[in-house]
Amino acid sequence: MEFQLQVPTKVIMGQECVRKNEALFASFGKRAAIVKSGSAGRNGALEDVIAALEARDISYHVCGNVPPNPTPEDVAALLGYAPGFDFIVAVGGGSAMDAAKGVAVLATNDIPAMGLFDKVYENKPLPVIAVPTTCGTGSEVTAVSVLEVGDTKKSISKPELFPAAALLDAKYLKTLPSQVTADTALDALAHSVEGYLILDSWATDMFAERAFANFALYKGAFGKHAFTDDELELMLYTSTLGGIVISMAGTSAVHTIGYPLTVHKDIPHGRACALTLGEYVAFSYEVKKEKIDRMCGLLEVDGVEGFKQMIRELLPEVPKLSEEELARFADISAEDAARKKNTKPVSKGDIMRMYLASLLG
Amino acid sequence: MEFQLQVPTKVIMGQECVRKNEALFASFGKRAAIVKSGSAGRNGALEDVIAALEARDISYHVCGNVPPNPTPEDVAALLGYAPGFDFIVAVGGGSAMDAAKGVAVLATNDIPAMGLFDKVYENKPLPVIAVPTTCGTGSEVTAVSVLEVGDTKKSISKPELFPAAALLDAKYLKTLPSQVTADTALDALAHSVEGYLILDSWATDMFAERAFANFALYKGAFGKHAFTDDELELMLYTSTLGGIVISMAGTSAVHTIGYPLTVHKDIPHGRACALTLGEYVAFSYEVKKEKIDRMCGLLEVDGVEGFKQMIRELLPEVPKLSEEELARFADISAEDAARKKNTKPVSKGDIMRMYLASLLG
Repeated sequence: MEFQLQVPTKVIMGQECVRKNEALFASFGKRAAIVKSGSAGRNGALEDVIAALEARDISYHVCGNVPPNPTPEDVAALLGYAPGFDFIVAVGGGSAMDAAKGVAVLATNDIPAMGLFDKVYENKPLPVIAVPTTCGTGSEVTAVSVLEVGDTKKSISKPELFPAAALLDAKYLKTLPSQVTADTALDALAHSVEGYLILDSWATDMFAERAFANFALYKGAFGKHAFTDDELELMLYTSTLGGIVISMAGTSAVHTIGYPLTVHKDIPHGRACALTLGEYVAFSYEVKKEKIDRMCGLLEVDGVEGFKQMIRELLPEVPKLSEEELARFADISAEDAARKKNTKPVSKGDIMRMYLASLLG
Repeated sequence: MEFQLQVPTKVIMGQECVRKNEALFASFGKRAAIVKSGSAGRNGALEDVIAALEARDISYHVCGNVPPNPTPEDVAALLGYAPGFDFIVAVGGGSAMDAAKGVAVLATNDIPAMGLFDKVYENKPLPVIAVPTTCGTGSEVTAVSVLEVGDTKKSISKPELFPAAALLDAKYLKTLPSQVTADTALDALAHSVEGYLILDSWATDMFAERAFANFALYKGAFGKHAFTDDELELMLYTSTLGGIVISMAGTSAVHTIGYPLTVHKDIPHGRACALTLGEYVAFSYEVKKEKIDRMCGLLEVDGVEGFKQMIRELLPEVPKLSEEELARFADISAEDAARKKNTKPVSKGDIMRMYLASLLG
């Protein structure tokens, strides 16, 4: 068995962990920049971060809100080249954390926005402390920043982008609309499923299988459109597990296929991935039978059909698209999808079949 | 649930992973010091390390063999203050890896041997690449170095002692005498059991429970006194899991109670821990019933008695000691044992009862 295992980010979970870990903030320096989503001011996360920084007399600059699905230009506009800062605090969901990683690079490197995609940065990016406020992206433990470029999304992946620390307090999830919680939880599920299927590794298997067993414990709660504190905490943990899985395994064509749905149809990222996830699992069954059976067992669903049924129940009404539009999205995503690690080669025809089965109006 | 999760060491497992990762060695610099056990020259590990260094034209100094249970003075004698080296390669079992961590400190800090126990080091220790050749210590993924001082063992624990990387190739275990394999596998089991019982953390639970399930897969092999390549690989992985568990949870009184048996009776460390592990589990049952039941289920043993029976079967003939000697050992270890994190407070009387039940002649 060949595999790698590393979790460079210091993950700290617990009630009030932001305020309790003010010493952690102080250990990174005296001048912070805060990169945040618009909701960070409403769910209590920004307030807690500011309280922790104030308690240690750390000066801070609060950047404007990160827009959903930020572009490199959006990232550059948040702070730009700003030597003198010691660290970045990311507060929000995937968009805020991915933008914060970009800000961490641009703050120390005087390069244009598209320079984020350069192979090498001259100067080390600032350390990032991530405070996630959704339960899907896993960005708090990955070295990846996904930004919108043109008509799709592009990933930057570099070891120096691993956040230095992640502070997980499920109380910030309480104000999320229940469909957002479901969408992000589906993103987290997709991460574990994709990583589990495209890489055979004792390490990622362990994290993914724990994620599946956790998901089985709260999947019944989605129908109630309300979650207990314990459920939210387990969802947040499971999201971080999914992030650890993709930090080692990467994502599959499922993510690539989902990007045009987000860019052109405003379908939230997690939901976009979930829409074709069931078809990808079915597509992969002939080469990954044993693992898919094991996964379905842990998720407590009845085989691939049960898996697809479970996802359908967690999605709101599915948008119906025309064959022409889906063909265009297949065109857009085919090249990137084929370049991804997959269970078996993915052709444009395969993508089209997955789109048609999931989204044809 | 409050917990922390981090695996700072880059763990790479696989056949021939030392030679395949010559670029990893090169990424740490041009001058290496090799700290090794006596057996590293016989099991092929030293040869592979040297081949990897030669392939990248890295100069290296091979230190003399690390003695079993090294003292701080032994560590200082290996290399001493030697600015100019870029990194250390540790090749061997727990003694070699623990010594290498000490060498990494002394190479950059001009301090006496006992300065290893200082609270702060002026200079950062050199990075350590660990190549374990036994399957017990877990030192390849911990920030701990255990050294013999006077009539017991003392731990140094500092984040900067985490090895930068660990290269796990089970072929080096093939030449281990089967009782050494069993002793070290028991050490690994003790790490997972102790961490699992003294800390309630989703993260350590995940690693420990995987370790228990793995142990169940190869525990039947000990009776044959021979192991397949697959079994050795799983044992090596399980040992690293145990290391990850203690890197987050620490060890309990079991380790402390075992030290005098190693220092004064030459009982190998893993065996020494295993001797009282069953009694510690029984001692903890009233406060950790649910977890112990779950652990026994994963290990496929019939409750606490089944757990004790399983360990007895893996041990060679147990040494029999006098009540006087055991009382002396309880004296030596009581203070350190009480200071450890434990399932419930451990008194000198408790230690004596565990010794008597396990070791009275």
